[in-house]
Amino acid sequence: MDKLISRIEKIGYPVVAGLDPLLDYIPAHIKQPHFAALGNTLEAAAAAILDYNKALIDALADVVPAVKPQCAYYEQYGWQGVRTLAETIAYAQAKGLYVITDGKRNDIGSTMEAYAAAHLGTVDVNGAVHTPFGADALTVNGYLGSDGVRPALKTGKDIFVLCKTSNPSSGELQDQSLGDKPLYAALGDLCEQWGAGAVGDWGYSPVGAVVGATYPAQLRELRVRLPHTFFLVPGYGAQGGTAADIAGAFDQNGRGAIVNSSRAILTAWKKSDTPEDFAGAARAEALRMGKEIQLTMNNCTL
Amino acid sequence: MDKLISRIEKIGYPVVAGLDPLLDYIPAHIKQPHFAALGNTLEAAAAAILDYNKALIDALADVVPAVKPQCAYYEQYGWQGVRTLAETIAYAQAKGLYVITDGKRNDIGSTMEAYAAAHLGTVDVNGAVHTPFGADALTVNGYLGSDGVRPALKTGKDIFVLCKTSNPSSGELQDQSLGDKPLYAALGDLCEQWGAGAVGDWGYSPVGAVVGATYPAQLRELRVRLPHTFFLVPGYGAQGGTAADIAGAFDQNGRGAIVNSSRAILTAWKKSDTPEDFAGAARAEALRMGKEIQLTMNNCTL
Repeated sequence: MDKLISRIEKIGYPVVAGLDPLLDYIPAHIKQPHFAALGNTLEAAAAAILDYNKALIDALADVVPAVKPQCAYYEQYGWQGVRTLAETIAYAQAKGLYVITDGKRNDIGSTMEAYAAAHLGTVDVNGAVHTPFGADALTVNGYLGSDGVRPALKTGKDIFVLCKTSNPSSGELQDQSLGDKPLYAALGDLCEQWGAGAVGDWGYSPVGAVVGATYPAQLRELRVRLPHTFFLVPGYGAQGGTAADIAGAFDQNGRGAIVNSSRAILTAWKKSDTPEDFAGAARAEALRMGKEIQLTMNNCTL
Repeated sequence: MDKLISRIEKIGYPVVAGLDPLLDYIPAHIKQPHFAALGNTLEAAAAAILDYNKALIDALADVVPAVKPQCAYYEQYGWQGVRTLAETIAYAQAKGLYVITDGKRNDIGSTMEAYAAAHLGTVDVNGAVHTPFGADALTVNGYLGSDGVRPALKTGKDIFVLCKTSNPSSGELQDQSLGDKPLYAALGDLCEQWGAGAVGDWGYSPVGAVVGATYPAQLRELRVRLPHTFFLVPGYGAQGGTAADIAGAFDQNGRGAIVNSSRAILTAWKKSDTPEDFAGAARAEALRMGKEIQLTMNNCTL
């Protein structure tokens, strides 16, 4: 997790911009030329998303430490969308951003090796080594236990394991007691176990956890319980999580978590009269959110 | 689940061929022309896999009811591999096969809508409707609860929710008690709940469950517990599950489950001297396995 935390230290606050590019989020002047050239096709959608993402990345690269493309929003535009995912990751990394691929992947060991190769590692084709997607981190669902998680760690990259997710129904299973603790805490304890022996310079292991801003009590509880587990915190903003809600995510040094915002950053331009400056609006919103979170972190360390 | 069960009734036994195309499984005469033409690239790998899959599908279409491409093995060859996934699904469906995309997808509701559109449904691009992958069913991880499952059901297609997975470490979480039942049974009960009101002609709902052949006691227990939940049973063959192990997967009519085999079918040619007839070897193995399973089913209904 050192690469991410170093980026956060440099930028000054822990904000990850979620790149969840619904076509509806993209201004007409970006989309229309592609529809005109390629028709109303998946290829046109994928090309529009790539333009949009690149402009956002240019505007955000020096004001956020990381971006988080969500696989689903690329897969829904077919393999063309998935090509845009690969190109987005490469572009963001070239601009110095840390990239978290949000895929919530999970499978048995041999198959998880393939996911790990795809999203974090490399693949061999008749002796030539390729990097298919090559993100810095991948979100992972731990339901299958250790077999389904360790192959991702073997890549030497970071993972974020789902513990307490931000959605309304997350409690149906996650809040129930598994033996003597809630299921989300059992996943949290496994994160500490999987990361043991690999704690980095800033005190955190390569095994992070996903804990939603929409559940502030659990966020606070898990911060104390999991001292070496860095948190990826979704649910801030559009899903309802506030600055006060995420206060418990940070350790006594104001570290330990990065907070995601997707919609608020991506659609900031809709509140302005200048869709052509959608990237500037995204940058301003990221800066605003960064300051808001910085204030929360400083309050934690008083 | 009616479409799948009707296919099984027609073929006579419930075998799904897992299309998990590692390059190592593909005979040299299929791969080499692509490497010669395109170099040792992801594009060449993806083209070789497509040739291989099409030949397998041609050979299997009248002897298995369904195929199950595993996303990870396509994603590891980049977007080029994902294009092959889309082409494989379309080709298999054109040959009359029922296609289960094994993606174990999961996310919060709004994101799950995008996964559902990607893998089962359609997506709108400026008024034009596209079918990005269009499988008949998708495997789903239920850790996020109802929000993360219902969007997939809204497509009108089938899903298979992970209950008791076939891997060695599945018990770390799944076998532990969540309240008064094991976690795998809690997921099973949710399958019955999510499928309620949508039970089809054969008595099964569109919400199936993944239950591994490697855990025969749980398979038997869940068959009794979940009368309307059709089972996708991995772990047969290479992972260790035997014909006796899967006996408990079937109901009193010999229905209720489909058994996956990947490696044994895909690599059957390696036991012969004729790699050029890899598709024939796959067909023979599928038929052999079908007869073996038919015997098991008949024993269940005696």
